[in-house]
Amino acid sequence: MRNTTFRTQVCSVARALEVIGEWWTLLIVREAFFGTERFSDFEDRLGIAKNVLSERLSKLVQSGVMTRTAANGRGNPQIYRLTEMGRDLLPIVVALMQWGDKWINRETGAPIRVIERKTGRPVCPVELRGEGGTSLRLEDLRVATGPGANVSIRQRFRDE
Amino acid sequence: MRNTTFRTQVCSVARALEVIGEWWTLLIVREAFFGTERFSDFEDRLGIAKNVLSERLSKLVQSGVMTRTAANGRGNPQIYRLTEMGRDLLPIVVALMQWGDKWINRETGAPIRVIERKTGRPVCPVELRGEGGTSLRLEDLRVATGPGANVSIRQRFRDE
Repeated sequence: MRNTTFRTQVCSVARALEVIGEWWTLLIVREAFFGTERFSDFEDRLGIAKNVLSERLSKLVQSGVMTRTAANGRGNPQIYRLTEMGRDLLPIVVALMQWGDKWINRETGAPIRVIERKTGRPVCPVELRGEGGTSLRLEDLRVATGPGANVSIRQRFRDE
Repeated sequence: MRNTTFRTQVCSVARALEVIGEWWTLLIVREAFFGTERFSDFEDRLGIAKNVLSERLSKLVQSGVMTRTAANGRGNPQIYRLTEMGRDLLPIVVALMQWGDKWINRETGAPIRVIERKTGRPVCPVELRGEGGTSLRLEDLRVATGPGANVSIRQRFRDE
């Protein structure tokens, strides 16, 4: 039911959430950014049930966010790695972490810092920028239709 | 059960997802960015069941992402607006939209474009940047512990 409604939404936010919208899914991607590759390591580090993890990982492989390969070694463990599509989620995961640091973990301070290796300094807050590099806020923006707009989007966001 | 596990995770991604991790929640925030304020408009534009919408909006108000005020007019409609905490989700929603445009709606093209009013040009792809302004990829980064790290995070991400 929820899925049916979503498929009728062409908006890329809605369609992206179909792929990575569930809690566990994005936390699995976060773990992969931290370097986790083996099923058993995802399981231990996330404290997630085997069947849920297995289902989510399969969905991520199916959607093209991760690849699964069999590694050598005891029990031929499955290795999960991010594809380019998956690695492209990095700004979203870091932005979510920064938002949580700022608004939810404010009193305790950030549990984790993402550091630029070369400088040893934390990465900048993820921001919205215009072509000239200016940082943009909501009031600086408007919404226009793109080439993939359907009739209802066109009616709603008529170009000004 | 899912919630219990999450509360033990201090990571800000996990805690941010507790607030905005559900599909509908982030789509409600997207709608608010588009200017939607009234309960009935959220209902129409999202195609969401009244009880689900009502529950999600209350959760967003409770968490501090939105405010609810009664407006004048027929039936004293409830008006929902983003707080500063909510407006701070803008880069995340736009980054998610751009990711969906690039990886999911690729053939049809972007349904919606986010435009800088002043220049009339689309906003830049949301990126991770270092202090000098360099665009950063996964291999440019390492993870370090922050002030809010607990024992298990400290053991895992020992500063190098």
